[in-house]
Amino acid sequence: MPSAFEYNDHHMRGNTFGKLFSLTSFGESHGTAMGVVIDGLPAGLNVSLDDLQRELDRRAPGKIAGTTSRLEDDKAIILSGVFEGVSLGTPVAVIVNNTNQKSTDYDKLKSEHRPGHADKTTIMKYGVRDHRGGGRSSGRETLSRVVAGYFAGLIIPQVKVRAYVSLLGPFEHTEILKDLYLDLSPYSFPDTSKNDEIKKYLEELKSQGESVGGRVRIIVENSPVGLGEPAFDKLKADFAKALLSIGAVVSFSYGLGEEMALMKGSAVSSYENAFGGMEGGISNGEKMLMTITFKPTSTIGDKAKEGRHDPCIIPRAIPVVEAMVKVVLADHYLRQNAYLVK
Amino acid sequence: MPSAFEYNDHHMRGNTFGKLFSLTSFGESHGTAMGVVIDGLPAGLNVSLDDLQRELDRRAPGKIAGTTSRLEDDKAIILSGVFEGVSLGTPVAVIVNNTNQKSTDYDKLKSEHRPGHADKTTIMKYGVRDHRGGGRSSGRETLSRVVAGYFAGLIIPQVKVRAYVSLLGPFEHTEILKDLYLDLSPYSFPDTSKNDEIKKYLEELKSQGESVGGRVRIIVENSPVGLGEPAFDKLKADFAKALLSIGAVVSFSYGLGEEMALMKGSAVSSYENAFGGMEGGISNGEKMLMTITFKPTSTIGDKAKEGRHDPCIIPRAIPVVEAMVKVVLADHYLRQNAYLVK
Amino acid sequence: MPSAFEYNDHHMRGNTFGKLFSLTSFGESHGTAMGVVIDGLPAGLNVSLDDLQRELDRRAPGKIAGTTSRLEDDKAIILSGVFEGVSLGTPVAVIVNNTNQKSTDYDKLKSEHRPGHADKTTIMKYGVRDHRGGGRSSGRETLSRVVAGYFAGLIIPQVKVRAYVSLLGPFEHTEILKDLYLDLSPYSFPDTSKNDEIKKYLEELKSQGESVGGRVRIIVENSPVGLGEPAFDKLKADFAKALLSIGAVVSFSYGLGEEMALMKGSAVSSYENAFGGMEGGISNGEKMLMTITFKPTSTIGDKAKEGRHDPCIIPRAIPVVEAMVKVVLADHYLRQNAYLVK
Amino acid sequence: MPSAFEYNDHHMRGNTFGKLFSLTSFGESHGTAMGVVIDGLPAGLNVSLDDLQRELDRRAPGKIAGTTSRLEDDKAIILSGVFEGVSLGTPVAVIVNNTNQKSTDYDKLKSEHRPGHADKTTIMKYGVRDHRGGGRSSGRETLSRVVAGYFAGLIIPQVKVRAYVSLLGPFEHTEILKDLYLDLSPYSFPDTSKNDEIKKYLEELKSQGESVGGRVRIIVENSPVGLGEPAFDKLKADFAKALLSIGAVVSFSYGLGEEMALMKGSAVSSYENAFGGMEGGISNGEKMLMTITFKPTSTIGDKAKEGRHDPCIIPRAIPVVEAMVKVVLADHYLRQNAYLVK
Repeated sequence: MPSAFEYNDHHMRGNTFGKLFSLTSFGESHGTAMGVVIDGLPAGLNVSLDDLQRELDRRAPGKIAGTTSRLEDDKAIILSGVFEGVSLGTPVAVIVNNTNQKSTDYDKLKSEHRPGHADKTTIMKYGVRDHRGGGRSSGRETLSRVVAGYFAGLIIPQVKVRAYVSLLGPFEHTEILKDLYLDLSPYSFPDTSKNDEIKKYLEELKSQGESVGGRVRIIVENSPVGLGEPAFDKLKADFAKALLSIGAVVSFSYGLGEEMALMKGSAVSSYENAFGGMEGGISNGEKMLMTITFKPTSTIGDKAKEGRHDPCIIPRAIPVVEAMVKVVLADHYLRQNAYLVK
Repeated sequence: MPSAFEYNDHHMRGNTFGKLFSLTSFGESHGTAMGVVIDGLPAGLNVSLDDLQRELDRRAPGKIAGTTSRLEDDKAIILSGVFEGVSLGTPVAVIVNNTNQKSTDYDKLKSEHRPGHADKTTIMKYGVRDHRGGGRSSGRETLSRVVAGYFAGLIIPQVKVRAYVSLLGPFEHTEILKDLYLDLSPYSFPDTSKNDEIKKYLEELKSQGESVGGRVRIIVENSPVGLGEPAFDKLKADFAKALLSIGAVVSFSYGLGEEMALMKGSAVSSYENAFGGMEGGISNGEKMLMTITFKPTSTIGDKAKEGRHDPCIIPRAIPVVEAMVKVVLADHYLRQNAYLVK
Repeated sequence: MPSAFEYNDHHMRGNTFGKLFSLTSFGESHGTAMGVVIDGLPAGLNVSLDDLQRELDRRAPGKIAGTTSRLEDDKAIILSGVFEGVSLGTPVAVIVNNTNQKSTDYDKLKSEHRPGHADKTTIMKYGVRDHRGGGRSSGRETLSRVVAGYFAGLIIPQVKVRAYVSLLGPFEHTEILKDLYLDLSPYSFPDTSKNDEIKKYLEELKSQGESVGGRVRIIVENSPVGLGEPAFDKLKADFAKALLSIGAVVSFSYGLGEEMALMKGSAVSSYENAFGGMEGGISNGEKMLMTITFKPTSTIGDKAKEGRHDPCIIPRAIPVVEAMVKVVLADHYLRQNAYLVK
Repeated sequence: MPSAFEYNDHHMRGNTFGKLFSLTSFGESHGTAMGVVIDGLPAGLNVSLDDLQRELDRRAPGKIAGTTSRLEDDKAIILSGVFEGVSLGTPVAVIVNNTNQKSTDYDKLKSEHRPGHADKTTIMKYGVRDHRGGGRSSGRETLSRVVAGYFAGLIIPQVKVRAYVSLLGPFEHTEILKDLYLDLSPYSFPDTSKNDEIKKYLEELKSQGESVGGRVRIIVENSPVGLGEPAFDKLKADFAKALLSIGAVVSFSYGLGEEMALMKGSAVSSYENAFGGMEGGISNGEKMLMTITFKPTSTIGDKAKEGRHDPCIIPRAIPVVEAMVKVVLADHYLRQNAYLVK
């Protein structure tokens, strides 16, 4: 165990994701504002603040009794890069103000290290932290990703990216979603006839101070072929990094995934699209299929019964998941485009 | 579907991995040589060509009847960066010559696109490829990683990284390996009393032209705390990318992994080290635990009965897996060290 | 010559400078705000908003009759990365609002391409631009650099960086400045007894709608040794890039500089510190000396007689020059520190 | 002054240049080989080993009495990235073996720190060095740049880059070179009628153990418009870095350059192309013009009278200068191309 002295003056980075289409994220959950700088958006694209706001609003809580949201205040403000509704080709900076900087007695939180949170490791790393909340490790950091995902989508408008809940407590949907344009609100579960049951289940969890994990599937249709690089930047590798960079995600697989551990080569070859649209790490034009696992949120017990805590954050994470996939695809699309020399 | 014309003149990159400790990989499987440039090795470290060669030799095939190896010719040649057995702080270039450039009739391979390989997507991406073999997508590319892993280990000598087979066909070992220094050759399966049975199983598969997938566990002991960055470069995210960048890997999880999809928060909190040594994406000093899935090799049927094809590449991939984990750790160690300003 | 059509949808990047200490700049001169995200500031450093503001205020115009400034409104707002006056190790975002978005008739500027400005090349590059001002190519972009320079200084507090005017019209100071702590305001010319004459000279230029170029010297004392890398990232190369990235700078030299074109080796070797503190691209602990040339501002004629136009922007550029030098030094300091493995 | 202890275990990097077209250089002058990995060469381009070798041969010494060369042995070996004379889109690795590893008594060089060389700063930085020669700081490192320049030229075949000597001792050519295709060998001085006089001058210098500096002009014709980025990666800034990364270069200017220090705005505006083909840091399609200064080589006295030492290295540096300019242009060309989304 390092001494207090060794904790001093440590530092970090890794706030930028993407090479040609990149987002640089900033902001602590209880600081002045969260924000993101998007670099690499081509000039001349139509930008709609309404559409951007709509994506952010999808992060609102699961509308169950007992949860309240500060999200209604999460208004995107575009500081640069857009003029008269058109992208300038310059960096797009977007901020969302933090409105909950109340004069609470935060002092009692100072030495509290919530298990499963980054509180302890943040101190291990930096020797100092903003004890009023999760800081950079807060879920609010994902605002930057949703904003970036909106802009990424402008680069590859023909590509459809859809994430949905395939497992949430007793609710499971094993088939692959066919129609990627269905409205699955508010829980992103394909069988919307279960919505009332899901609501009840979540309310019960909340009343118990309990949380639950789950599984999300991601489908991509109409991706260009040839995206991804043969060595380290395989498309599957960049998807894995993008999705594991979301706090609550604990596993990633694609195509037949973990099932292949038990399969023989002949069995795999009998499947169509066993590799989820990627061969040799490069998109082959077929439908992409990925699966990720979310852990249950770490906040449980009495604290979880309070205010805005959701017993399952997966429904709110869906737009974040879709955004990260879009960012990877837009970045690789520009990378491939760079070398298409005429 | 893009036309043949659209396929022309495409390009790639992504041959570099790591920020402060980086490897740049080059070489096609049937070109003159495979190689790697390692940048970011501190000066003054003792380098042993013997130790390096020993790591490369671990990539030798699983020693079953019917497989032969060109690996005995895989001799590492250090071109730069080392003088009188000591690292200079300059880039370390290492090459391994390709010795199998025989005057075979490769022409029949020209239009052959092996399913599950990168043959088709390589043409989709570049419009041209070296049809004599897998090119950049060949397993031989992983030589670069094993070389880099050796040098990464010099930076973090106190850290122990161990990968082993936890599932291979009917052979499964569910317990977590306790002693990370055990000799598990040649199959890296913890219960070495099964080695003869495994050998027989693999030989049978080969005689059938069949292949099989499996599962590998990775354990890291004695990692420094505070490695990993809170936003995109979470340690778990960089491990996921590093491991998914290995061709045959199809899933990644850490800690309790996929099991958490079905767990409640209270259940998770009852485990010690449920998050495999990482909280908020940052190492907390506890033992790290990761699990990955390998797909069965795509080459099956008569072709798989020939020469050097292994019915299960996992035992040979073990040093590659360990190498990539070491590279991530060494890189993050230097990144953290950079900001430790006195 | 490309057609109008070919101009469409072009794009840019290059808004980030630095590797371990980096700044990402954003904002158009007539957009909502200018801003910068600084990544790589170690945790635990004391941050003073007053000191930061003081640096920004040094960009105020040269206080001559006929120039007015919107700079009094250039108030730095820290959005993230600092808590209770201490750096968190997280990205520091700072914005400065643009307050001059008046409802002027900007339409007449739409097709006006000022010679020597980026107006024409911006359209060549992007096919679209914010015609209300210089956009990204405006001098206001340098706000981001001054902010970053303040934070860079916190990393290397022992290093003294000083820039001053060595040539401005008829005013020349050829000796090397000895005391780097002298107050040379407002013109940064070492012989402050000339300040009244300089003022008069500048007022005369302005009344004529004329502008003038000049020369700036930069001295660095007490730099750590060993900064800079032997191949491409030589310290002199990174200084050159940093300073040439300032719009009006047209030349860079260090040490004896251009004089060496006419010198023999024996003559050079008779000088002490002929290479301005850098040998083989690496700092040797001696005093660093660099010289840069500024072109006269391109705005001349009637337009230059108006409002805030300065006939010589060099005095205002001095803090920008110092900032870029500090950023390079702080970045290389962290880079060197990264490999100092214990 | 740091103590011997503080010198230990230091390190470096910066061996990669370029973003989308990049070269990673490796090799010490007295190690096994010099080499370079070029990443970002599009697929499908015709590659000629003969043309590549011809570029390398231009680095041969100035053919004056008393200089001998090991350059005749500098044969390029392509290890990867090219198949049947066509680029594969994969990394191109090229090595040149070092053939002068004679069993000389190098021990006397161990503690010798040649003034003006990197010997001292290398020890300051790493605490260890290959004392048999200049190591990474040797002029032999520029082999990597000439190789990369050849491949960069394949990307922008329509662009003509030409460097020539405008000042060498008493020989000066002030006019701008009109015909960029003239054969100016072996001294790259436009007035080739002076070649005999130059030869005699250099021989005299050598017999005196003397060296001399000089000036080189660079002209670029037919560059695409819109290259360069408005903030930090201005084209002029990247040219400055590229050229200052050459060991002996001590100044950079473009367009009217240093003359502008003394000019008024109205005078500058009376020139055509005063800004050397770049406005706002972006190419405008006009002829580019840059000027750099070389210092005299540091090796003087008896040592300079020996073997292969050239009293003026500028003629040999000309292909290096042209190569770096081509690399910058090819890189920016691909960067611009990336965002040209259709």
